[in-house]
Amino acid sequence: MNNFEFYTPTHIYFGKGYADQIGSLIVKYGYHKPLLVYGGGSIKQSGLYNRVISALDAAGLSHAEIGGVEPNPKLALAKEGIRLCREEGCDVVLAVGGGSTIDTAKVIALGVPYEADVWDFWCGKSQPKTALRTVCILTIAAAGSEMSQSAVITNEEGSIKRGINSEFNRPLFSIMDPELTYTLPKYQIACGVVDIMMHTIERYMTRKSEVELTDRIAEALLKTMVHYGPIAYHEPQNYEARAEIMWASSLSHNDLTGCGKDYFTINHKLGHELSAVYGTAHGASLSIILPAWMKYVYKYNIARFAQFAVRVMGCEYDYANPEITALAGIDAVETFFHSLDMPVRLSDIGIPESDIPMLAARVTANGANTFETYIELTTKEIEEIFRLAY
Amino acid sequence: MNNFEFYTPTHIYFGKGYADQIGSLIVKYGYHKPLLVYGGGSIKQSGLYNRVISALDAAGLSHAEIGGVEPNPKLALAKEGIRLCREEGCDVVLAVGGGSTIDTAKVIALGVPYEADVWDFWCGKSQPKTALRTVCILTIAAAGSEMSQSAVITNEEGSIKRGINSEFNRPLFSIMDPELTYTLPKYQIACGVVDIMMHTIERYMTRKSEVELTDRIAEALLKTMVHYGPIAYHEPQNYEARAEIMWASSLSHNDLTGCGKDYFTINHKLGHELSAVYGTAHGASLSIILPAWMKYVYKYNIARFAQFAVRVMGCEYDYANPEITALAGIDAVETFFHSLDMPVRLSDIGIPESDIPMLAARVTANGANTFETYIELTTKEIEEIFRLAY
Repeated sequence: MNNFEFYTPTHIYFGKGYADQIGSLIVKYGYHKPLLVYGGGSIKQSGLYNRVISALDAAGLSHAEIGGVEPNPKLALAKEGIRLCREEGCDVVLAVGGGSTIDTAKVIALGVPYEADVWDFWCGKSQPKTALRTVCILTIAAAGSEMSQSAVITNEEGSIKRGINSEFNRPLFSIMDPELTYTLPKYQIACGVVDIMMHTIERYMTRKSEVELTDRIAEALLKTMVHYGPIAYHEPQNYEARAEIMWASSLSHNDLTGCGKDYFTINHKLGHELSAVYGTAHGASLSIILPAWMKYVYKYNIARFAQFAVRVMGCEYDYANPEITALAGIDAVETFFHSLDMPVRLSDIGIPESDIPMLAARVTANGANTFETYIELTTKEIEEIFRLAY
Repeated sequence: MNNFEFYTPTHIYFGKGYADQIGSLIVKYGYHKPLLVYGGGSIKQSGLYNRVISALDAAGLSHAEIGGVEPNPKLALAKEGIRLCREEGCDVVLAVGGGSTIDTAKVIALGVPYEADVWDFWCGKSQPKTALRTVCILTIAAAGSEMSQSAVITNEEGSIKRGINSEFNRPLFSIMDPELTYTLPKYQIACGVVDIMMHTIERYMTRKSEVELTDRIAEALLKTMVHYGPIAYHEPQNYEARAEIMWASSLSHNDLTGCGKDYFTINHKLGHELSAVYGTAHGASLSIILPAWMKYVYKYNIARFAQFAVRVMGCEYDYANPEITALAGIDAVETFFHSLDMPVRLSDIGIPESDIPMLAARVTANGANTFETYIELTTKEIEEIFRLAY
């Protein structure tokens, strides 16, 4: 077991009705004026926007607001939020939405007290030393941003999608009411299921596989997704299914499923390029990349892939030839994604094979970077993974 | 799924060597003078005491100290600590030890800013409104106090052992180095395994059993204990085994394994009376009570007890008669405790059958209290459970 730190200070309020307490909670934590950040207006259609405003008003809080956050959120909007937050003297950033909205709020919270360009933190020029606090009302179970230390943003100049980890990114508290996810389009439900599984698998499928407790917790989470993912997809108003998936989203990315282990993020890196270049939804980019990556690397740890196949995907163990089990598990993942109508090939979403060298070169910044996942991945190997995904 | 809050702000530093950073960590968190609390001197024999003092000295910290915490820790010593802490102007309480030492530190931390008798919090006369912070170096994997909001103390006047939950009880940070547990007597290793399993089972064996994710995480933890418990018992210096058990101790009692569910503490309540009256080790009191409680209540939720038998204890499911599976699971628990040389009967530790009515009356305060676990338990039913434990 590797040494590790574990720190998940975000206070979770999980269940029905908590959204109406947002005003009193902000007051309880000692803040006076939130900057409300939200997306494309779905919270207005669902009525959540009005509930939030009523709750803020009832608590005697004034607020400023900025809407229009898009999937694969953009730096420019976050910068607009930073300007507004300063101008209005807001002392806390309130995200109402999914991962894109929460990540935008995190960028704003880091940017407000920072005098130079907030992108500095994402291009490694500077490290955060302070930030405003963010608080969340989650409406999409997927990114796990409501409890994580990560924030991903896309710089439109050069279409660069990047993530950073910082303790300042942990939300102060997050309200998670599964009923708020009822109005989500089915495609986004499926994208969320893939994203949650991916966070877990990237911690589970590592070289150091000796942490039984961490592994079994990861399997607990993955099995729950395999069970409840299709239920949520076909019955969007099934409270239990939406609740299980929502709670899994937080646990998948608050570091619990990686304690004492290595952590690969290579699938996210490949997927980010699809989002940056083609605007592919994050979950869809991952459902395409994961099976290809698994096919490319399983042979370096057949025991682990066979364990995954049996314990998570319910395959029968082939004692004579565990490789058959490992491959059956990869097949099962593809079949599972298919059952949620997710793409599993670049060709499924119209990406031409001829783009593959360009995509691989982007991942490694033209060969400047390599990645470890069982073996070292250079541009050449990454190109081969993309070809397996075609 | 029930609504729930989840809040685990304790920063965990897990692995080899962190104990030597105790001084610099206390400085990092902004404190100046710890009150060092420890037990019967085992940390002096093991050399840990000297390491801690060196680390405090190296960080330029002065300190005060109080040793002599016993298992089933006593209120009088905590009160002595409160007096000393005030007199010496300590601003943080540093526990170096197991659950008893950490709980004593928590009592001191609550008591220092409270002008009246600190026992008020345990007899329900008052609620904590503030406290000093506690920080920990854990040396025994068992109670989970290093990450929990609970603190249990015994008032010598009347031999009353009681616990309270308060957010002020959460340690600021805890250092967990599995190597520090190597010198623990084998009996205490086994007691710890029982305690950790008990925290989990009391959250798992409830009436509302619909939270698959929480259940599977609980099963992950229990299976890990069933696997690594005997390894740690027979090879005390097996790092991986001690590490798995140590991490399980925290996760078993930081509320993770109960999210969205009810929580029974009836086994702890019965066990506490054995400790209060006879000084029985906490883990031993639980290994006696749990099988008896299971035998008494399994029939009210056969499906759940059968699930436990199959998923945790590795029993074969009897499709024709699941009750057989449920009973096999209870047998397997007894056999497992036996394999760790733990007592499973009152008679194993010399408690006479004639004491049972007195013990049952203590649990319910002479009939003043009843407890819900599937069915309501009055003095009569609790006496029956004690008889099953005889």
